[in-house]
Amino acid sequence: MTKSATATGSASLWATYELSLEGPGEGNPFQDVELRAVFRQGDREVRVNGFYDGGSTYKLRFLPDTTGTWHYDTRSNAPALDGFEGSFEVAPAQDGHHGPVRVSDRYHYRYADGTRYINIGTTAYAWNHQGDATEEQTLATLADAPFTKIRMCVFPKHYRYNQNEPDRYPFPLVTKGSSAWPGSIKDAGWEFDYERFEPEYFQHLEKRINQLAEIGVEADLIIFHPYDRWGFSHMTPEQDDRYLRYLTARLAALPNVWWSMANEYDLMPNKSPADWDRFIHIVSDNDPYGHLLSNHNCFAFFDHNHPRITHSSIQRSSANMAALWREKYGKPVSIDECCYEGDISELWGNISGQKLVRRFWDGTVNGGYVTHGETYYNDEEVLWWAKGGKLVGESVARIAFLRRILEEGPDEGLDPIQSTTAYRIQMQGGLDNVQLQQLFGTAPGEEGWPRVTSWWATAGQPHRYYLSYLGENQPHEYAVAVPPAERYSATLIDTWEMTETPLADSVQRGDLLHFDPKPYLAILLKRIED
Amino acid sequence: MTKSATATGSASLWATYELSLEGPGEGNPFQDVELRAVFRQGDREVRVNGFYDGGSTYKLRFLPDTTGTWHYDTRSNAPALDGFEGSFEVAPAQDGHHGPVRVSDRYHYRYADGTRYINIGTTAYAWNHQGDATEEQTLATLADAPFTKIRMCVFPKHYRYNQNEPDRYPFPLVTKGSSAWPGSIKDAGWEFDYERFEPEYFQHLEKRINQLAEIGVEADLIIFHPYDRWGFSHMTPEQDDRYLRYLTARLAALPNVWWSMANEYDLMPNKSPADWDRFIHIVSDNDPYGHLLSNHNCFAFFDHNHPRITHSSIQRSSANMAALWREKYGKPVSIDECCYEGDISELWGNISGQKLVRRFWDGTVNGGYVTHGETYYNDEEVLWWAKGGKLVGESVARIAFLRRILEEGPDEGLDPIQSTTAYRIQMQGGLDNVQLQQLFGTAPGEEGWPRVTSWWATAGQPHRYYLSYLGENQPHEYAVAVPPAERYSATLIDTWEMTETPLADSVQRGDLLHFDPKPYLAILLKRIED
Repeated sequence: MTKSATATGSASLWATYELSLEGPGEGNPFQDVELRAVFRQGDREVRVNGFYDGGSTYKLRFLPDTTGTWHYDTRSNAPALDGFEGSFEVAPAQDGHHGPVRVSDRYHYRYADGTRYINIGTTAYAWNHQGDATEEQTLATLADAPFTKIRMCVFPKHYRYNQNEPDRYPFPLVTKGSSAWPGSIKDAGWEFDYERFEPEYFQHLEKRINQLAEIGVEADLIIFHPYDRWGFSHMTPEQDDRYLRYLTARLAALPNVWWSMANEYDLMPNKSPADWDRFIHIVSDNDPYGHLLSNHNCFAFFDHNHPRITHSSIQRSSANMAALWREKYGKPVSIDECCYEGDISELWGNISGQKLVRRFWDGTVNGGYVTHGETYYNDEEVLWWAKGGKLVGESVARIAFLRRILEEGPDEGLDPIQSTTAYRIQMQGGLDNVQLQQLFGTAPGEEGWPRVTSWWATAGQPHRYYLSYLGENQPHEYAVAVPPAERYSATLIDTWEMTETPLADSVQRGDLLHFDPKPYLAILLKRIED
Repeated sequence: MTKSATATGSASLWATYELSLEGPGEGNPFQDVELRAVFRQGDREVRVNGFYDGGSTYKLRFLPDTTGTWHYDTRSNAPALDGFEGSFEVAPAQDGHHGPVRVSDRYHYRYADGTRYINIGTTAYAWNHQGDATEEQTLATLADAPFTKIRMCVFPKHYRYNQNEPDRYPFPLVTKGSSAWPGSIKDAGWEFDYERFEPEYFQHLEKRINQLAEIGVEADLIIFHPYDRWGFSHMTPEQDDRYLRYLTARLAALPNVWWSMANEYDLMPNKSPADWDRFIHIVSDNDPYGHLLSNHNCFAFFDHNHPRITHSSIQRSSANMAALWREKYGKPVSIDECCYEGDISELWGNISGQKLVRRFWDGTVNGGYVTHGETYYNDEEVLWWAKGGKLVGESVARIAFLRRILEEGPDEGLDPIQSTTAYRIQMQGGLDNVQLQQLFGTAPGEEGWPRVTSWWATAGQPHRYYLSYLGENQPHEYAVAVPPAERYSATLIDTWEMTETPLADSVQRGDLLHFDPKPYLAILLKRIED
């Protein structure tokens, strides 16, 4: 006898296909019941974990990566869930469905269907824990913003300006003593039942992630973080691992999920290197779609050479190091925290819009990608970086301007033609040759030490496109350093005023371009017919 | 029989006292004649070298450091110069005569008479080789500027924007072939006679140094430099040493001379570490007054632990490292090059006025001193950094404002109360703990790693005066971190707009100060009666 599950909607390429099954609600279904399925097309098999979604509902989610007929069958230790079979037709992708973002050309990204993806992130760690009004405002803000990614936490956040209680918890809350919320689990007789999950909590998370997908925003989902008054950062290894399996069973089939193992993993001293390695394996083993995966640092970078890390997620102000980090790890560089535009006391939360835009450009012309955040204080304490809401800063418009320039540039993205970082660190960092040798693997005067042929960091595609960023410096001239015998048009870009001014129709190597000196300029050289 | 030399003027404390003697003019008096003198007061003996000044004139110069009667006698291998004796009365110091600048309180400076000296330098490497009109304009500019020191070269300078020929040379020029100046000594039959000096060249130098003294400016005299088309950077060791002895015999008795062994010593590969050590010994052995002495780098710092180096003369943009360099060398830190305000192409010559003023403040609140320079292009190619002339930049007025604040501050100068540099490098520099350990001698989590108790670098004098600099950050509040149970007045300083706004009459530890967020603010806390 063949049993058939209930499918939610019709199947199309790169859309989450969901099967619902009725199963046992008694006992602890989260732990007692195992449910798996295999989705098949020809010789291909995609193994998927199901999950308990409350009541008598179990679900299986699948993200088809090809059109045509797919078959499935289920296996479970619960007879009511075991032995389901079925098949369905996967239609071509709907408009705007491009599949998960993946690494392309080693240092860049594309959606699974080959469409270029430009990683321009923002950060609103706990936007999904602020109640419907603020959360919908955040979505509306994002719809008008240039960002293609948002960093956000699964768990609620406890920090300065983040004292409000979330509407819901990921685990059932059980009372042992006083009935008033004590503000701290440990101080009173309250505790969470870590043996179970709250399906509604994850349903809400999924709803928000799906809404992000509708407006073209990837969810860089932070799985663990240290800013915690509830205890979620101090679960046992068994509880951690169960959480990871449940989370991936629910979310892996959502196309726009990235796995950020932690925010500031190194501020969680109760997690060992072996824990992080195990977490990464659990997540990637249970993600048949190969979503992007990284681990974000406070001080010491995570070892992004880890084979299951797909890209370097880095917190560091020195975005101009991106070219070096590309070389170090051989992966795309995402500078996911380089301080926030704002005015709060905290040193990481009070840089100017100019400074943040500068870091975007520094990262860009060094072949990396940079993430935004905003921390302007307001009396409601709804700061974008944590709660979302509205954006009031000056950097967003300039980031949109940069995005447009990148969109009009080479489809392969920008690779460093010349990084001046080593030279600048040598000049500015107070490091001696031994230290430079350790940092770069070579030192001034040695083989391989970067030879600076121009003062300006430049990225592009050789023989076609060169974008130099002059930063806060204010030269009155620029020496064209393209390959010999090639001709280029030259445009002056004011990255702050957001203007593009033609400088010359045709220039070649050695020509000097002149312009009014001011900070935040860039020079764009585009090849013309010889 | 006692012979008496001719004295130039009467003697007073901290004024150069000069004796002239008639001696042989034939042969090569620079090498053939040795002339020395001993100046005595009680049991004190000051040994002085004389020098040949052309014609039949020999001179001995002495800088008295006490009032009262001094005696001298001369020794020479030339009978006409040998055996002179005399005595003279040293009167009290004339107005404005304070003696040489010396290190005080390990990290600061005072004139020999105890008057505080605030080291605020500027740079005009070849101002003294530009002809009278420009040189007098430079002196007039300096008289109205806040600078108390100028970095300047003994030799003329060859570099971009520095192609003009000097009016005079330090050595006689002898023709061997063509009579036209070839632009390069080596390319034609011209050469210098390094066996002799041109006294007029050094007379001119002395005149300019004395004019600097009249307007309260120290001459940080650069003895060697690599920007050379004449050959002065490639003399033989014997020629180098003879030059050093002649220079010190002439100049050591000038009160406002500092010895800068080189500009960018590490760009002179033909000079070895042993050469620099020998040069330093020759200069200091022949300087009985202990003028300040250092050696300025391009990339690698000179070893400022050298016992005869009095202060660290440093080229580096990261002026906020001053507190660490103080610790490393145990000497005053003078950041004598941190890029120049200007608009030329060269990366070191096109920072904004804001950026240069920021580096002055960064150095100041880290217990160091910073030197100015300006490189705005003009068609005459008279750029202040090399030729002097006029100052047109925006930083000078702000540096004058800073000088006034320092003058109104503690007479001992400002010592770092808290340096945030290690924290910032840790956050921004991309260094791992091994590298941080090498740089600071300790690493995060280890004993001695700087504990940051405020976000802001602060200098002052404990329990009396605290000056915090907020840099380019723009917080809207500042947490007062003075010692418990002490009360302070609080002033908001806008270091760019040059305003001082009282924030509170009386604050104590833990109070929050609020103000409009913008870059380049500082907070000054002054102790009030408890």
